[in-house]
Amino acid sequence: MDHDLAALTARLAAFADERDWDQFHTPKNLVMALAGEVGELTAEFQWLTAAESATVLTDEQRADRVRAEIGDVMIYLTRLAGVLGIDLVAAAHAKLDDSARRYPAERVRGSADKATDQPAE
Amino acid sequence: MDHDLAALTARLAAFADERDWDQFHTPKNLVMALAGEVGELTAEFQWLTAAESATVLTDEQRADRVRAEIGDVMIYLTRLAGVLGIDLVAAAHAKLDDSARRYPAERVRGSADKATDQPAE
Amino acid sequence: MDHDLAALTARLAAFADERDWDQFHTPKNLVMALAGEVGELTAEFQWLTAAESATVLTDEQRADRVRAEIGDVMIYLTRLAGVLGIDLVAAAHAKLDDSARRYPAERVRGSADKATDQPAE
Amino acid sequence: MDHDLAALTARLAAFADERDWDQFHTPKNLVMALAGEVGELTAEFQWLTAAESATVLTDEQRADRVRAEIGDVMIYLTRLAGVLGIDLVAAAHAKLDDSARRYPAERVRGSADKATDQPAE
Repeated sequence: MDHDLAALTARLAAFADERDWDQFHTPKNLVMALAGEVGELTAEFQWLTAAESATVLTDEQRADRVRAEIGDVMIYLTRLAGVLGIDLVAAAHAKLDDSARRYPAERVRGSADKATDQPAE
Repeated sequence: MDHDLAALTARLAAFADERDWDQFHTPKNLVMALAGEVGELTAEFQWLTAAESATVLTDEQRADRVRAEIGDVMIYLTRLAGVLGIDLVAAAHAKLDDSARRYPAERVRGSADKATDQPAE
Repeated sequence: MDHDLAALTARLAAFADERDWDQFHTPKNLVMALAGEVGELTAEFQWLTAAESATVLTDEQRADRVRAEIGDVMIYLTRLAGVLGIDLVAAAHAKLDDSARRYPAERVRGSADKATDQPAE
Repeated sequence: MDHDLAALTARLAAFADERDWDQFHTPKNLVMALAGEVGELTAEFQWLTAAESATVLTDEQRADRVRAEIGDVMIYLTRLAGVLGIDLVAAAHAKLDDSARRYPAERVRGSADKATDQPAE
């Protein structure tokens, strides 16, 4: 793992440890906290059109809230990965390798039905 | 941004570009995709006790699913950040600086009510 | 509570009881299950435009999946309310009474900023 | 549909209409709003143990927040169903009929692996 993510992971572990919060940071609870923060991020975008969402950072107050929510999501995702011992970037690349095999560019170009990394059921 | 996250961000941009998927990758849609993947991750943990969640990776099949879901969450979070031009690690640290100020260790040690980085309302 | 919701609540209680699933149906777990199902519902809409989402039920396969996911969301919301002893319809009306006071029609007509029942921060 | 849910559905339609909010209430946006509210509900439970979650309504402040969040979730689920023309209770029963077939009581009694209405993959 690279320095930046390792440093963040270590800071999160120390932050929890000095507050005696490890007791609350079970993977189950951390997944719920992650879900809660993604919910707050979702709420920032719920009434925006696609075009408005593309320029969301031009509104200063909204930009502050979006950055804060994305920060919270990254905090809980990184803490969860740290507690479980999972390398976030490696996990992402592994899933992408998988998607690249199942959705080769020439087959899915421009199609929304395959624009997801899970097959439609 | 460090090499690992920058490399992942670039790979995600190329992956979308060669499939002509940028049209679908509006911030609004990417937030929904992130929410969808976090929902799938949540489903893996919903019936587990806190203790079972701590050893979730000892079950091989479950471990594969958890790593895959965490990979998917990291994919969409990193892609969203890339499209918006937000540095994930910097945003996390900024939020932590904020939380460190509002919840100094000596004040909140061991208390669940402050074991979140947002004040209870 | 009316007959239809009361009947569904009772059926859900019996369904769990005859499978000895009450042990898993803590409010915490039921909230996670609800979040998981809402995640799946979100995934059905993530790449659709607003216009495509309005006609989502005209595609038979997608319609089946959307109805199934909405059914799952209603199942876990109703079960959670049943376990907690909360009347879903009464809770919704109480929140609407609250919103009607805070967002009188003449003040917020046509404005997205108030098109949510929580004030922007 | 029974009187209570029909009355709530009608009230929600009138509420949106008199604020000229139909333009924002596309199914896509309503699904996001639902996800946002479920996120807030999740946040109320994230640090609680299973036992604490079972008595969550005994704490007056927390009880008010939980009822309010459940009210919000019911509002957006009912509004989404109304806009799509889906009967919530019928959809829930249809899914339960399905689950009853796939998970007969005698086969799954007491087992967490089948304590979900979707098969583990």
